[in-house]
Amino acid sequence: MAHINIPEELPGIRGLMAFRPETAGPLNELAEALLRAENSLSRGERELIATYVSALNDCYFCQNSHGGYAQHFLQCDMAYIDAVKSDFRSTNISDKLKSLLAIAESVQKGGKYVTESQVAEARNLGATDVEIHDTVLIAAAFCMFNRYVDGLGTWAPKDRDIYVNRAKQRAEMGYLNFDPHS
Amino acid sequence: MAHINIPEELPGIRGLMAFRPETAGPLNELAEALLRAENSLSRGERELIATYVSALNDCYFCQNSHGGYAQHFLQCDMAYIDAVKSDFRSTNISDKLKSLLAIAESVQKGGKYVTESQVAEARNLGATDVEIHDTVLIAAAFCMFNRYVDGLGTWAPKDRDIYVNRAKQRAEMGYLNFDPHS
Repeated sequence: MAHINIPEELPGIRGLMAFRPETAGPLNELAEALLRAENSLSRGERELIATYVSALNDCYFCQNSHGGYAQHFLQCDMAYIDAVKSDFRSTNISDKLKSLLAIAESVQKGGKYVTESQVAEARNLGATDVEIHDTVLIAAAFCMFNRYVDGLGTWAPKDRDIYVNRAKQRAEMGYLNFDPHS
Repeated sequence: MAHINIPEELPGIRGLMAFRPETAGPLNELAEALLRAENSLSRGERELIATYVSALNDCYFCQNSHGGYAQHFLQCDMAYIDAVKSDFRSTNISDKLKSLLAIAESVQKGGKYVTESQVAEARNLGATDVEIHDTVLIAAAFCMFNRYVDGLGTWAPKDRDIYVNRAKQRAEMGYLNFDPHS
């Protein structure tokens, strides 16, 4: 049971957003700007960064819901997402994306863990300032979302197929139209 | 120098918000909803939670800019804010606010560190569900803001009087009207 009185049937962030629409609005706008809006990083790449940070923070709901979006956009399966989560350096994602995930990994520990050489490496591999900025802010934002979801003791469906099966419809709907009740 | 090419004269989050207005909008709306909108927690109490978490994350810019707002709203001085940051349990803030700061302290470590007994303690001392919710989300949000500001290597004025002197005008202006250039 969650730490506060939210609609019991709604898992993860959904119950919290139904409880507090005043903060749900800006949170969904932030997710839309970071994860879906026009960007030289694909939606799949950005959802993968979100998924990876959520795994580092051990947030079951976020790593599976965003992992579901990532496998939808990247047209892969959850086993591939799991491989990225457990050791992205040994997967076949691009070197540029690896350099961005390394930055995200540092941000998860704390802002000061990001090094000049990590940023130089990403830039050498073609990352733009906006891509570096957005990677840091996506990683930082999921340090918020993960703490929000787990800090209020929400529950999450254990069956991972549920996340995969919801992903296509939710991904098409986008965050601005996010309805916590559906 | 920051890790990306942002206006050099703007410290902390200001340069980042000038660089990326697409994300600055939702971030400022979130800050407004959490720290300034109508709430049974005063603006000073909410800024104090933000300041405390920013101190735990060792973010100089955030702990001093929000510390400046806190001392403005609470009508105290920075020495009092510093006492709260270093050992809030030994200050004369209310027991309810102490119980909320204890929850914020756990959120800073990770969402799963928040315990049922911490929440029960806060509730016994009069905290409402919205206050508990907002405390968790303020703490989580500053785990984002702090990582954003430090993760992109921004600079911060060292002179703490600068933050105090700006606080009154900025506090009156609010986050929705935040202009990173002024």
